[in-house]
Amino acid sequence: MLALMPTRFRKAVCLGALAWALWPSAHAFADTAAGSHGDPVAPLVMSLAIILLAAKLGAELAMRVGQPAVLGELVFGVLIGNLTLLGFDRLAYMKTDAAVDILARLGVVVLLFEVGLESTVAQMMKVGTSAFLVATLGVIGPFALGWGVGALLLPDASVYVHVFLGATLTATSVGLTARVMQDLSRSQSNEARIVLGAAVIDDVLGLVILAVVTGIIGAAEQGGSLPIGALLLIVGKATAFLVGSLLLGVWLSPRMFRIASRLKARGVLLALGLAFCFFLSWVASLIELAPIVGAFAAGLILEDIHYRDFADRGERTLDDLMKPIGAFLSPIFFVVMGMRTDLRALAEPAVLGLAGGLTLAAIVGKQLSMLGVVNRGVDRLVVGLGMIPRGEVGLIFANIGLGLHAAGKPIIDGNTFSAVIVMVIVTTMVTPPALKWAFSRSVRAPAPEPESVKQPAP
Amino acid sequence: MLALMPTRFRKAVCLGALAWALWPSAHAFADTAAGSHGDPVAPLVMSLAIILLAAKLGAELAMRVGQPAVLGELVFGVLIGNLTLLGFDRLAYMKTDAAVDILARLGVVVLLFEVGLESTVAQMMKVGTSAFLVATLGVIGPFALGWGVGALLLPDASVYVHVFLGATLTATSVGLTARVMQDLSRSQSNEARIVLGAAVIDDVLGLVILAVVTGIIGAAEQGGSLPIGALLLIVGKATAFLVGSLLLGVWLSPRMFRIASRLKARGVLLALGLAFCFFLSWVASLIELAPIVGAFAAGLILEDIHYRDFADRGERTLDDLMKPIGAFLSPIFFVVMGMRTDLRALAEPAVLGLAGGLTLAAIVGKQLSMLGVVNRGVDRLVVGLGMIPRGEVGLIFANIGLGLHAAGKPIIDGNTFSAVIVMVIVTTMVTPPALKWAFSRSVRAPAPEPESVKQPAP
Repeated sequence: MLALMPTRFRKAVCLGALAWALWPSAHAFADTAAGSHGDPVAPLVMSLAIILLAAKLGAELAMRVGQPAVLGELVFGVLIGNLTLLGFDRLAYMKTDAAVDILARLGVVVLLFEVGLESTVAQMMKVGTSAFLVATLGVIGPFALGWGVGALLLPDASVYVHVFLGATLTATSVGLTARVMQDLSRSQSNEARIVLGAAVIDDVLGLVILAVVTGIIGAAEQGGSLPIGALLLIVGKATAFLVGSLLLGVWLSPRMFRIASRLKARGVLLALGLAFCFFLSWVASLIELAPIVGAFAAGLILEDIHYRDFADRGERTLDDLMKPIGAFLSPIFFVVMGMRTDLRALAEPAVLGLAGGLTLAAIVGKQLSMLGVVNRGVDRLVVGLGMIPRGEVGLIFANIGLGLHAAGKPIIDGNTFSAVIVMVIVTTMVTPPALKWAFSRSVRAPAPEPESVKQPAP
Repeated sequence: MLALMPTRFRKAVCLGALAWALWPSAHAFADTAAGSHGDPVAPLVMSLAIILLAAKLGAELAMRVGQPAVLGELVFGVLIGNLTLLGFDRLAYMKTDAAVDILARLGVVVLLFEVGLESTVAQMMKVGTSAFLVATLGVIGPFALGWGVGALLLPDASVYVHVFLGATLTATSVGLTARVMQDLSRSQSNEARIVLGAAVIDDVLGLVILAVVTGIIGAAEQGGSLPIGALLLIVGKATAFLVGSLLLGVWLSPRMFRIASRLKARGVLLALGLAFCFFLSWVASLIELAPIVGAFAAGLILEDIHYRDFADRGERTLDDLMKPIGAFLSPIFFVVMGMRTDLRALAEPAVLGLAGGLTLAAIVGKQLSMLGVVNRGVDRLVVGLGMIPRGEVGLIFANIGLGLHAAGKPIIDGNTFSAVIVMVIVTTMVTPPALKWAFSRSVRAPAPEPESVKQPAP
């Protein structure tokens, strides 16, 4: 990789690598730096400096080989996170650092808000049927295939294990696809809207599936019955949130900004927009949806026309104000996601068979979702590929499985858990190049020229 | 205050207050919302939504009564933080929440970077002599008066207590003054540069004073001698940082950005600028300076001309990209600073005498600093008033005093600590109106019209 770079650039990288190797651990250093100020921000700023530089270096290399920037951020994250395998563990603290973690999470909230701002509720409604069908088929496909793979490769395990494995493959992780669409300047395409809408619905379906599966297993173990009431409550709460927040938001947003536009304080538009995003993220988490679902909904609801008063007096639009914040925070999420990818999971022979089966089931199964597209002129393959990433949701499922038991054995054991991790790694890594390829082969969509969008307008 | 607002605005505030009172605790809610996602970002986003709204409401009210926005942020922070006195403790968790705390600290780092960007090293050098003299006199004045107040009001305490009290009054907290200057669109005035430069030098002097005073007390207690070597090391390290980082930065920065301008990835300028700011903040903390000193130095070093290549291809300047990030993060710092202000400290009769004496010594003593101004056309009163805020540095000193002993008694006892807190509160609260007044009475400086700057250029 180094050989491909121009000399001067290579020199800089080598110097950087040298400086890095000579440094004592940033964290240990920062700890001793408590001194008279003892500011806990010291280790964080050091971590952020490293993460931001890694993100940009990764993004640059990815783009030079024609890939979305986020792939480079992930890969450089993986490299940093797995330096421990080479005996270099000075940066390993970043994988578990609470401050880095919270900024990464804030980064993906801000990203989904940004992406939501690029579409309106009306535009989402137009692809609503497709999104719903895509979500439903995208759950059925991997569920059935995952169950089958479980039955085939773990014949001795109980049927509950097979069902649970199927469930683990269902949920789509929306953050990565949102970011790839942004990198490719396609966030405003119908394909992106269908995938993002479907991923939101997936989040609701995931809640339901988790409740059903754990309910069935619990009932089987303790002889109770399936908690139908609890299930209905979950579906009801989640639906009420999605519909309610959209209706309330659509009513409230223009009024809120009309009042706010009378304020003289600086930065009112940005503060109010962010507060709205954060508030809906929190409400989403209250009803056990992912906070990013709320952030995306907030972005959809807020529309340029609501804050026209601000634009009329020469202030920037909210999209514009959010860009630097997203550019700062969202790479943190992807570098950290990469860092937490333990490559050793890929090197366990005992696991690889099951891992391969699950990964195939996850990828192939999600392609069923493309049949759900009813809108015309939509590239079905882009939708199918966009639904691939599983991200952290699969891991959350698997984690719950570690604590569940059927016939005295845990539903998910250590090996199965490792196989799920491999599935998450592979689905995350294949999505950026797959989407890039799918868009580039598509001649139908009259896309904006990506190169011209790279540089924001003056 | 409510009566001053227009009806519609008042209605919104009342509705907001009602909704707030009816809510269960955001934090308790968020805790139960762990659910299938269990995202620790949930309580944070709720806190941020409240803080951002409080900041803007406070800023608005402050501006309507002709005060800098930051005063309103502080006051609304104080109101939220002291709701516990009215028995409402649902929001009290924010005072100690680790995630809110780290974002607040990041906010002041970003603020000082922003303010640093508005000046160049050359411009700072022009006021360097003034800044140095202002810092030195601004240490001598409060030190002497603080010692005197201690001797007068605590006649039974040892001389070490008096010396330590004097030392506690010396350090200037630069964050607040930087923000007031920004609010008043005066960050580029010579007055601002002198105060900010002097505050940076104060941070070094503060380290030295702390080392001398604790060294003397330690020597007196244990019969050792003053650690001259350690003192010289501190001064040497701090001076080496300031001079070294300026020289290295001035040499490195244009080269770094020239290489970076060849990169095609989006957001390189912002990422590199932030990484540079974070790196110097960390280096500053390594040698026990405040991280914000490093951030300010980074801002000074980076100059528009270094990243002209980016501007030439139509990208925004770094100042411009930092604005939304600062507008998001810096109010968090001031609202949280307000929240942590315990008003009960103002209601302890036993403490008020000493508190009044210390506060007077702190304010009057710092006015000696204005004699250090040697540049022409500089409003000395603005400089003197700008040096008033003590912020957290005084508290750090007092905190160390709690752990030091002379003749078997702690140097700083509970009552004295409370008096120091009152001093910090008062110096923080008087600075914004004092500076606003000083600038408005000054006819000399041909200032940009503040009103026209409120709205950023399109």
